[in-house]
Amino acid sequence: MFITFEGLDFCGKSTQVKLLADKLTAAGKKVKLLREPGGTRISEKIRDLLLDKKNSEMTIESELLLFSASRAQLVREVILPSLRKDYFVISDRFHDSSIAYQGYGRGINVQSVEAIQNFAINGAVPDITFFIDIPVEEMLLRKNKIADSQLDRIEVSVSEFYERVRNGYLEMSNRKKRFVVINGTEKIDIISQNIFSIISTKQKEKE
Amino acid sequence: MFITFEGLDFCGKSTQVKLLADKLTAAGKKVKLLREPGGTRISEKIRDLLLDKKNSEMTIESELLLFSASRAQLVREVILPSLRKDYFVISDRFHDSSIAYQGYGRGINVQSVEAIQNFAINGAVPDITFFIDIPVEEMLLRKNKIADSQLDRIEVSVSEFYERVRNGYLEMSNRKKRFVVINGTEKIDIISQNIFSIISTKQKEKE
Repeated sequence: MFITFEGLDFCGKSTQVKLLADKLTAAGKKVKLLREPGGTRISEKIRDLLLDKKNSEMTIESELLLFSASRAQLVREVILPSLRKDYFVISDRFHDSSIAYQGYGRGINVQSVEAIQNFAINGAVPDITFFIDIPVEEMLLRKNKIADSQLDRIEVSVSEFYERVRNGYLEMSNRKKRFVVINGTEKIDIISQNIFSIISTKQKEKE
Repeated sequence: MFITFEGLDFCGKSTQVKLLADKLTAAGKKVKLLREPGGTRISEKIRDLLLDKKNSEMTIESELLLFSASRAQLVREVILPSLRKDYFVISDRFHDSSIAYQGYGRGINVQSVEAIQNFAINGAVPDITFFIDIPVEEMLLRKNKIADSQLDRIEVSVSEFYERVRNGYLEMSNRKKRFVVINGTEKIDIISQNIFSIISTKQKEKE
């Protein structure tokens, strides 16, 4: 089964990914944990390019194509072979992040972004995608707490960007059957139990 | 005017690019010479990834997306701004190389490759594209002479790959009006004169 986690930064994705992996491993399943961008030698090199702050002149189109190149490598080198060996593949972000961030967020035509994603993932569509939803204000609050940042007033443009990303995720959740929206302001344990029971049900359906 | 040169390796592209640039400069034109992949700081970093022989596990889809990312950056950072400043932009390879090599050559669906190129180049379609055509045997001959290689017999698979690339270029030449096919087995000076007179005619048409 291929499971992806999506959402704004600080929504709690990475925590939930780990908790789910632990629960599945405890239940005797083989689990492959991934985070994007990255996950292969070549994808990690592309990740370095993407995250290097010196590359501030990078265009949004180049950025999208680099994310997609990293993903194309990950799908063919790790995800598809692992699924064939009956692993539970769990990825912290996947192609929906590009659609939400580069498409809805940065304003690249959403159909173009989706077409490029279809090419990159080669049919490796997740069986289930958890969108862990938190309000943008909650994200900014958590971010500033964690980073102990000096930001007193968040710029309006930043806030508007994340609103577009969140609305993009919500729009996709309505449009794509594999999406499950999770209220990210609930307690960690409650979210985790909820996710595990959804996965268990899904697995029974598949058997 | 935006001019691109295409063809198999050792067809004489780079020589012709230089000769044309010299002639245009001598005629008082502003010329911007480019080679792909590369041409910007970020594109050169992507070039390093693409040309590093250690990255032999790179999938053809990841390769295509990396070429396209490098190109998207080059178009927006250099090509479009230079064209707006009335430069003659001359590129040694451009998006048709991806269509010929990754599409026709390696067998990625040609429509998919073209769609990704349209996204990457953002309307920066060359005004004229010189396809310098040489037979595959001629390429292999020149290659072995230059590299002083030990290859006595060229593998059939290698030869077949280049035949597909060449046929792809010929097919595009029939289909796309901007293509001019040049016989690459002619003498260098004759080819160069021919190219310069075609450019001069094209420029008069534009005026």
